[in-house]
Amino acid sequence: MIMQNKRLYPAKTAQMRTDRRSFLQLGGLGLLGAGVAGVSDAAEPPSWSEAGGGFSNYGQPADTEQRTIRWISANPAVPGEGVSWTPLHELEGTITPNGLHFERHHNGVPSIDPDEWSLLVNASGERSLRYSLADLHRYPLQSRILFIECGGNSNTLWKPQPVQAAAGHLHGLVSGCEWTGVALSVLLQEAGISTQDKWLIADAMDASGVTVSLPIAKCLDDVLVALYQNGEALRPENGYPARLVVPGWEGIVNVKWLRSLSLSDVPLMSRFDTVSYTDLQKDGIAERMTFEMGVKSIITSPSVGQQLTTTGDYEVRGLAWSGAGRIQTVELSADGGRNWVPAHLQEPVLDRALTRFRLPWHWDGRAQVLMSRATDTAGARQPSRDELISAKGGNVYYHYNGICAWAVDVDGDISHVYA
Amino acid sequence: MIMQNKRLYPAKTAQMRTDRRSFLQLGGLGLLGAGVAGVSDAAEPPSWSEAGGGFSNYGQPADTEQRTIRWISANPAVPGEGVSWTPLHELEGTITPNGLHFERHHNGVPSIDPDEWSLLVNASGERSLRYSLADLHRYPLQSRILFIECGGNSNTLWKPQPVQAAAGHLHGLVSGCEWTGVALSVLLQEAGISTQDKWLIADAMDASGVTVSLPIAKCLDDVLVALYQNGEALRPENGYPARLVVPGWEGIVNVKWLRSLSLSDVPLMSRFDTVSYTDLQKDGIAERMTFEMGVKSIITSPSVGQQLTTTGDYEVRGLAWSGAGRIQTVELSADGGRNWVPAHLQEPVLDRALTRFRLPWHWDGRAQVLMSRATDTAGARQPSRDELISAKGGNVYYHYNGICAWAVDVDGDISHVYA
Repeated sequence: MIMQNKRLYPAKTAQMRTDRRSFLQLGGLGLLGAGVAGVSDAAEPPSWSEAGGGFSNYGQPADTEQRTIRWISANPAVPGEGVSWTPLHELEGTITPNGLHFERHHNGVPSIDPDEWSLLVNASGERSLRYSLADLHRYPLQSRILFIECGGNSNTLWKPQPVQAAAGHLHGLVSGCEWTGVALSVLLQEAGISTQDKWLIADAMDASGVTVSLPIAKCLDDVLVALYQNGEALRPENGYPARLVVPGWEGIVNVKWLRSLSLSDVPLMSRFDTVSYTDLQKDGIAERMTFEMGVKSIITSPSVGQQLTTTGDYEVRGLAWSGAGRIQTVELSADGGRNWVPAHLQEPVLDRALTRFRLPWHWDGRAQVLMSRATDTAGARQPSRDELISAKGGNVYYHYNGICAWAVDVDGDISHVYA
Repeated sequence: MIMQNKRLYPAKTAQMRTDRRSFLQLGGLGLLGAGVAGVSDAAEPPSWSEAGGGFSNYGQPADTEQRTIRWISANPAVPGEGVSWTPLHELEGTITPNGLHFERHHNGVPSIDPDEWSLLVNASGERSLRYSLADLHRYPLQSRILFIECGGNSNTLWKPQPVQAAAGHLHGLVSGCEWTGVALSVLLQEAGISTQDKWLIADAMDASGVTVSLPIAKCLDDVLVALYQNGEALRPENGYPARLVVPGWEGIVNVKWLRSLSLSDVPLMSRFDTVSYTDLQKDGIAERMTFEMGVKSIITSPSVGQQLTTTGDYEVRGLAWSGAGRIQTVELSADGGRNWVPAHLQEPVLDRALTRFRLPWHWDGRAQVLMSRATDTAGARQPSRDELISAKGGNVYYHYNGICAWAVDVDGDISHVYA
């Protein structure tokens, strides 16, 4: 726990506090409106008078939590083509529940009978291996808490005007789960790797024919053939019964509904390797196969759609992640980027996992602009939007990792701004 | 990663291997039946020919995963009284998905309107504070991955004969989640603590009137007023909208559907303090308020109800936890406890969280008895069943943490044995 008493702003300007105890001192009772001296304990809640509901084989969220859903933005002209967004602004902690993990489908969710399913591994020459699900369950398993982020996440921020939408509807094509599966390296070594094998071509069972090419070094390093997501079998929309999980690399290569893996001396140059998820640079050349997701952070609370009802103490909260390693620091600004203070990072801070940051914040009722910027253990710092556009140009569609800014106005309303 | 090549048994006895690579060397293709030279890649799956299913606001498990449910053992004569068990034998990793977290209700699940709910904190004298859910959301939050275990988990193992049931149906009143909430210490300090305050009395909104007494030192140490479970709002059956999470302490004190917290110089001596969750010792005296759950482990795979279909390589997998700290080691035996080898522990090994252990295992077709025993960082080692009964006597109903043994017979069937 980092405890700091440094005072960053003059007494009458916006304050971002880093001392947890100051929350109590400042917030006190009056500001929070929580204190009621001599409240009677006599009132008995109605729930004491009647037996509650029974047991369930598989539980569901409370009926009163209807806001906490994936927001679907799909193309009605193309069945099963689109995305659904994790409602990051309604969530806390670092784990995304399976029912709310983002979806990106190119032609819907295939229905796969796990008893019929098998994974084909094509080595060089004539040699192929086929693994049933029961086979894979006998292999050594590994678990890792990892983020997966779509290469297209946050892409409205490339637009000239800031889109007014909730944090999860702008940035919610990222989720974090505990994935458990067989190390891909074990299967490839069993198949046999020759010195000519430089790439792995992975394809999927869905109707869009997702096929991607992955460098063999990454495949032998840390890729999983995942069978479990947060403890239970993969969800259908997340690749049931088996998917690749490629730590830190863009969503598309985390191939769902895995069908086959083929060793190759060259990449396939499929449409997913070449057309989609590539970035047209200023010089007219498209950057391709930019697998590793950049260091990034967003403030989830307060954020667009939430309302500050009174002045006083709040906590600024958000998520940070990097495809290159762990999050080293997240800094927050309440004045549009002029002054920055370090946020608390929730331990344990894990490699290529969502990292929760938080910092007490006193809102004095003035307009101000909240921003977060993350730095990873590889030394990369999240760029400002201007820096990102200056480096990449204005024709990019994917891989936005610039700083996002929320403006708080004097009424406590929050809007998305470019600052 | 611990890599060992030590050979523990003569060549013709049961072998527990600790070298991951040996899995490949031993398992090879023949044993797993996975190798099919020259398999054709030509067959196109039916799912390539039609668009898949669409998006969903809140996802659900695959229809083919019907086995992965909570097993309900409730008393039909008393509505809402009973338990449902986490299917540990169907799960992997360390996170329990929210829909499968075990339930223990004494009079059902109350239906609580979060807008009407508030938490009353009664300090000494006349002073009381009331917190709405919106108030609590403004306080600093903390997240921790923690196990919660019912004091009655595994209690059939006190019986003279081993009950034949799946691992989750014997031991599944334990689950692990990421809990996020406000530190209880912050609320108590705000209420004001006097030197007379030695206990906190916590009560619930459910119809059974759960009320427990907790020592003030624990309350000021690490207890959370939890609002989120694996990222989303608490599930109704797990205390929505707010519950206590008391790291490492028995389930009953992790009060769900929290109603009030009252500081006191003495414990209340409620029925949950005195009658339930107490252990009648050999001398006729009941041990009460034995809050901290003992060090424990169970093998989840292979386990009762699963079938070894062929000889060859498998992985022995299970979970370990301790209310006193981190898991230091888990040892496995394949010969009923004569020889032990250390299992691999899945990193990160977290304080008072479920810890996954695994070890490759070669089954040669002979009958053998699998056991696991855990040791925690406080130095406590999980006792054998005989040691536990010798220490505690035969009249105990709760707090079973002895070693559990699974016998594998020559047909690959698995049964629960006392060994």
